[in-house]
Amino acid sequence: MSGSGKSTIGRAVGDALHLRGLRVEVLDSGRIRQQLNRQLGFTREEIETNLVRLAYECKLLNRNGVTVIVTAVSPYRDVRERIRNGLAGLVEVYCRCPMDVLEERGSAELFERARDGEIAHVAGVNAPYEEPLNPEVLLETDKLTVDDAVNRTIAVLEDIGHIERVESACYSPDEEEMIRRRLQDLGYL
Amino acid sequence: MSGSGKSTIGRAVGDALHLRGLRVEVLDSGRIRQQLNRQLGFTREEIETNLVRLAYECKLLNRNGVTVIVTAVSPYRDVRERIRNGLAGLVEVYCRCPMDVLEERGSAELFERARDGEIAHVAGVNAPYEEPLNPEVLLETDKLTVDDAVNRTIAVLEDIGHIERVESACYSPDEEEMIRRRLQDLGYL
Repeated sequence: MSGSGKSTIGRAVGDALHLRGLRVEVLDSGRIRQQLNRQLGFTREEIETNLVRLAYECKLLNRNGVTVIVTAVSPYRDVRERIRNGLAGLVEVYCRCPMDVLEERGSAELFERARDGEIAHVAGVNAPYEEPLNPEVLLETDKLTVDDAVNRTIAVLEDIGHIERVESACYSPDEEEMIRRRLQDLGYL
Repeated sequence: MSGSGKSTIGRAVGDALHLRGLRVEVLDSGRIRQQLNRQLGFTREEIETNLVRLAYECKLLNRNGVTVIVTAVSPYRDVRERIRNGLAGLVEVYCRCPMDVLEERGSAELFERARDGEIAHVAGVNAPYEEPLNPEVLLETDKLTVDDAVNRTIAVLEDIGHIERVESACYSPDEEEMIRRRLQDLGYL
């Protein structure tokens, strides 16, 4: 939903994947709507049109070796399923956040105007928001830092085998000490 | 214009570039309109919207090392200029073909219905078609085979420096004989 942290986390995951040497594009649905699809609204059909276009861009980039992160409000379960069926390798990341935190983060006016009927089709307020039932990654963004959200997403991408696991080169002081002793015992130091 | 050979030549140029080891995508405006933009018509504004979207896809692919060929009717000079200004490295290929040949090739019904006023916004019939004044490549498709059109396009791309020149390894029998004699004179044979 609006304010859940999609764009912030999406960009941060993009940066993390880029650091690993992957080609990455982050497509922000909101920004693309403003720049390219201003005439497109938020009815169920228009949302699907928008997502089908984004999926097409993913496909073009994917088959040329580019990993794509799409940040979008995608409130309809059946639309998500259709997109998933047409797009091999899709990983769904659900940024879940309670209403009161979303409002604190700056979505209060949007939601209030939607409740007043001044704005139509706001997902989760005066239009459906059908929660993902089984997303590959669930991020409770009111409880996680951005770093934690990124690490959790990357970990799932590694588990699935989408990206290679990178061994951490950082050890705690205790671990460092243990390694030093072990190397000493073995005669290397 | 409709029937000028854009898609056929575009695909063939795509194949030729692919054979040279380039990553290539051929985006056919007509096909993409049918699949993704069915609600988009052919007014001046809608044509611009369509082309701006295609340019955005080009940009995404370009910066990931993919050469993109777009085949589209693009009848407005100022729209073409705006697209060109936003898209570094654009090469304009104008497929020119006289009206009677276009009609022979299957556009007769479209043009007739446009003349009757049954269909609106058909470029060059009941809507403007502003010819490119200075395209990088001019293909008179009523006089050229597809192979010739491809070779001419590739030659311009080489001249501009967009792609590397590939030396021909084929010589005529006379040239072969000349080379043989020259090598003999030099003592190599």
